[in-house]
Amino acid sequence: MTLPPQSLIYLDHNATTPVDPAVREAMMPYLAGEFGNPSSGYPLGIRAREGVEHAREEVAALLGCAPSEVFFTSGGSESNNTVLKGVVDFRNPEKCHIITCAVEHPAVLNPCLFLVELGAKVTILPVDGLGRVDPEAVEKAIEPRTRLVSIMLANNETGTFQPLAEISRITRAKGVLLHTDAAQAVGKIPVDVESLGVDFLSVAGHKLYAPKGIGALYVREGKSVTPLIHGASQERGLRAGTENVVLAAGLGAACRVARERMEGDLEGMKAMRDRLQEILFEGIEGLVLNGDPEKRLPNTLNVSVPGLEGAKILSGLQGLMASTGAACHEDRVSMSHVLSAMKVPERVAMGTLRLTVGRSNSMAQVEEAGRMLVARVQEMRNEKEP
Amino acid sequence: MTLPPQSLIYLDHNATTPVDPAVREAMMPYLAGEFGNPSSGYPLGIRAREGVEHAREEVAALLGCAPSEVFFTSGGSESNNTVLKGVVDFRNPEKCHIITCAVEHPAVLNPCLFLVELGAKVTILPVDGLGRVDPEAVEKAIEPRTRLVSIMLANNETGTFQPLAEISRITRAKGVLLHTDAAQAVGKIPVDVESLGVDFLSVAGHKLYAPKGIGALYVREGKSVTPLIHGASQERGLRAGTENVVLAAGLGAACRVARERMEGDLEGMKAMRDRLQEILFEGIEGLVLNGDPEKRLPNTLNVSVPGLEGAKILSGLQGLMASTGAACHEDRVSMSHVLSAMKVPERVAMGTLRLTVGRSNSMAQVEEAGRMLVARVQEMRNEKEP
Repeated sequence: MTLPPQSLIYLDHNATTPVDPAVREAMMPYLAGEFGNPSSGYPLGIRAREGVEHAREEVAALLGCAPSEVFFTSGGSESNNTVLKGVVDFRNPEKCHIITCAVEHPAVLNPCLFLVELGAKVTILPVDGLGRVDPEAVEKAIEPRTRLVSIMLANNETGTFQPLAEISRITRAKGVLLHTDAAQAVGKIPVDVESLGVDFLSVAGHKLYAPKGIGALYVREGKSVTPLIHGASQERGLRAGTENVVLAAGLGAACRVARERMEGDLEGMKAMRDRLQEILFEGIEGLVLNGDPEKRLPNTLNVSVPGLEGAKILSGLQGLMASTGAACHEDRVSMSHVLSAMKVPERVAMGTLRLTVGRSNSMAQVEEAGRMLVARVQEMRNEKEP
Repeated sequence: MTLPPQSLIYLDHNATTPVDPAVREAMMPYLAGEFGNPSSGYPLGIRAREGVEHAREEVAALLGCAPSEVFFTSGGSESNNTVLKGVVDFRNPEKCHIITCAVEHPAVLNPCLFLVELGAKVTILPVDGLGRVDPEAVEKAIEPRTRLVSIMLANNETGTFQPLAEISRITRAKGVLLHTDAAQAVGKIPVDVESLGVDFLSVAGHKLYAPKGIGALYVREGKSVTPLIHGASQERGLRAGTENVVLAAGLGAACRVARERMEGDLEGMKAMRDRLQEILFEGIEGLVLNGDPEKRLPNTLNVSVPGLEGAKILSGLQGLMASTGAACHEDRVSMSHVLSAMKVPERVAMGTLRLTVGRSNSMAQVEEAGRMLVARVQEMRNEKEP
């Protein structure tokens, strides 16, 4: 693994991941002699095409689908935009209804707002205190013109899983398409498009140890969308543009590595995350866990220290890299839309830390991070109430 | 330069280019320790953001614009789609008129066809026998609802330049936006957005020795488009998605190298191309030059051997990589839309070869390629008329 210097502890794997050495290795030929255009008919081009198709097979193997159901994109945001805009008939947007939920990523919510501006109807379902959508609410929201339900697999901030399999039973019964933004789930937990029952699924390479700038979209055989990028006939007409051979090869390798390491990674992440959680809850009085304590990503810990500012906690710990859940301005707190939808009180939300472990971590690092955080909170509390 | 094996001669630089070693070198840090997310506020993230911003400066320097006018995309196709769809109000597509021409790349023509389906009006102007648009025809086509003129800078097949500066004088006088797909021009000739007078300009990284999967869009200060990819606020809200740090760094380096090498590259390409042209015209009776003999890219040679099949000429020369201009099927010839728009007769078009030199070539290679092609054509003609 490409580790940050020993003195640094990276606990922000949901923001992005280091590039796996096997991923880098898979990319190198295409940065050197194998520079052909996959559309060219001579061997140099054919080998580039074969590289892309081999990568497609690796992605398909991780998702449990056919390679012909995998389309490469520039990342999770493009995958999401492709589905959300691609199911709408722009000539008659008002005839289209999309159902999503309040804790989705901006790459789902903002395309939806764009569609609303065009005249489409979008229902944004609420979530409960753990950040979960109620499948019954999905069912009730479906109307004759409902074209798509888009519900994420796991939340990027809290790690909370959505009840996708239950939702897919409903959408299938009603004949409605189902999309899931699985950017945070793929590579961290087993993701199988059949058991999920989804029609579309978005993958973001840089969340699973491939570089930023590559993603994939699963499109179930027999389903289709209008392309977001029109042009030449690459990706069987779904996505124009000369193939990103280098990064596709990287994503393929990342998916292979994720498949091979899945069981060990899952257990290892969970052990580190649980240990971190234990240290923090033992050492910090009044600490709040955000998200579903059980049904969540094995690497994600989202906690709040009521009354303190998350950014100030972290700014005192230069060696620790992590995220917060709110930004404090002079006169107000701007809470993440996820915590807001979960109705986390402002005084709690302002002290939120998102700590996400990954392959760059060791148990020793995580324990060190836990001790640092406990000491830092104690120090800040002492300063506050001397 | 990453050269193909010595026995191979790559004359297809308009299809794609090898990755320059300086480009690869600029990318490597971001494939190793510098894996941060540019949106993260700690030093690892800040350095990634600085890498992207440094690359943006390099692109801007090559185009003669401000860094704030450069937006990274996944490539030329996305850049073109962003402009063409981004200037249209999808709520009132019928109020929008776009003017383009018949020899544009599919990444311009196909988005236009999509817009026509939505109700927009698109005028596709014809070209003359050299592949040039008449600026007067542009002027005549402009009507009150004309929103955009999109005319390429140099054609990918023939290399023919379009009279962009003349067209921009017209569009500016009429208050119409001007876009140019400069995918084939950037890196081969000096491209300056001010002297061209364009409002939008598309760049494709892999045409100038950066990898496939990265591009840029120039958007003149004060002009704007609706994003193609909605989501988080990357690229100042114009293009959502975690930045492709690795390939952006590569494109930045490619632009720097192109700027540094421009004068020498331009002369060198032209010398090789002209020598190749000379050898072919000396050795092949009846050879036809397609495109403008003077006003064209310095690296591009598009010629036709009437009566022979381009693909068959090349298939007999395993060491030579180049493109054709038509595909022959059992009962018909499918000519490239560019040659078709130039009214090249079918018997001529079927024998078209696109030979595009670049940094991977030496003069000796090009002369060898010329001799091989002359001998091959002679051989085929002898077989035909024994």
